[in-house]
Amino acid sequence: MKKSVVLLSGGMDSATCLAIAHNESDDVATLHLNYGHRTEEKELDSFKKLSDFYNVEKRLIVDVTYLALIGGSSLTDKNIEVAKADLESTEIPSSYVPFRNANILAIATSWAEVLGFNQLYVGAVAEDSAGYPDCRPEFYEAFEKVISYGTKPETNIKIITPLIKMNKTDIVEKGLALNVPFAMTWSCYMSNNKSCGVCDSCVRRLRGFELAGSKDLIVYA
Amino acid sequence: MKKSVVLLSGGMDSATCLAIAHNESDDVATLHLNYGHRTEEKELDSFKKLSDFYNVEKRLIVDVTYLALIGGSSLTDKNIEVAKADLESTEIPSSYVPFRNANILAIATSWAEVLGFNQLYVGAVAEDSAGYPDCRPEFYEAFEKVISYGTKPETNIKIITPLIKMNKTDIVEKGLALNVPFAMTWSCYMSNNKSCGVCDSCVRRLRGFELAGSKDLIVYA
Repeated sequence: MKKSVVLLSGGMDSATCLAIAHNESDDVATLHLNYGHRTEEKELDSFKKLSDFYNVEKRLIVDVTYLALIGGSSLTDKNIEVAKADLESTEIPSSYVPFRNANILAIATSWAEVLGFNQLYVGAVAEDSAGYPDCRPEFYEAFEKVISYGTKPETNIKIITPLIKMNKTDIVEKGLALNVPFAMTWSCYMSNNKSCGVCDSCVRRLRGFELAGSKDLIVYA
Repeated sequence: MKKSVVLLSGGMDSATCLAIAHNESDDVATLHLNYGHRTEEKELDSFKKLSDFYNVEKRLIVDVTYLALIGGSSLTDKNIEVAKADLESTEIPSSYVPFRNANILAIATSWAEVLGFNQLYVGAVAEDSAGYPDCRPEFYEAFEKVISYGTKPETNIKIITPLIKMNKTDIVEKGLALNVPFAMTWSCYMSNNKSCGVCDSCVRRLRGFELAGSKDLIVYA
């Protein structure tokens, strides 16, 4: 039996990841993290809509606003400006939340161990790895070892990253092929009614749709 | 410069670990986790007294009560009974909080990265490893690799576990040699005015003092 905890932020990557997990698993549970993100309200709404869409019963929303307390990121610290997109830069973006994915994976593993689930689906993308060190395949491989050492002997949890080698265009294409309701997702780093269209995340999303020859149905400012 | 984040639960192991870090570091910060523990009030009080005692300025208290939400442990789930001590057992004790230490280390790493600190002091003890899979040396080694992959290139954080090979008696002896104020610490898994003296944690503590030929100055029921 394949039983999967899916990390579901509410963005297009995690939505596509949920669709893949839904196809490949006997049972699916969705986990959403509220980490004091500027855009939490938008993302939580997307989480609920997507979980409903895929008939997910087991849902967990975890408050990790301590990441805002720790600070160090434009996503959680209102004193740090959200940078305009610079896709060529190899610097760590200001939106980097220090070691965020490890925090998220630790929570997901704890929950999976209690549920008796054996897979974590994470919509991480390696092409983002120049920017976010905790999105790299090596990071996930290392974390899987931590899980095997740090859980009960009978617990056997694998991390599955189906999008890891995809670019945004691949993700759009994969999602469209699986009928992912992309209109339910939220990507923008700002939290206005409409997506800004100019932040890193919006620019990547728009370029993905454009290169896939498709139209993004969400509304931009 | 050695700058250390010390995980300080408020128990005697973490208090001894703080004393060691204080001796070995140029700067020390203390991190306390409130994870919905029955004994949080007692432990938080110990955390504050110990941080004061060692003149620690940088302190962080993080609410991780989501671990109670996830459940699976007698420490955080009031429906699971706190087991009487059985020091010969090799079963995972009911007090095991699934993958707790990974959650704690992830938080500590995030904070250390923001502070620009380069060491995490953890008062883990390997002799507990039959019970708690996330206290084993292999677990900590694996986690250090996760840190190196999952943080910024300039971030270099080592995990130091000075108590890892000690038993309770060694810890009592080390602590007494360093003048650790053990009377400020809290070990009991229950949360009454006096320590119960019969839970796993009390029995290990009492045996440690006894074998060290010393007297535990806290009051037992």
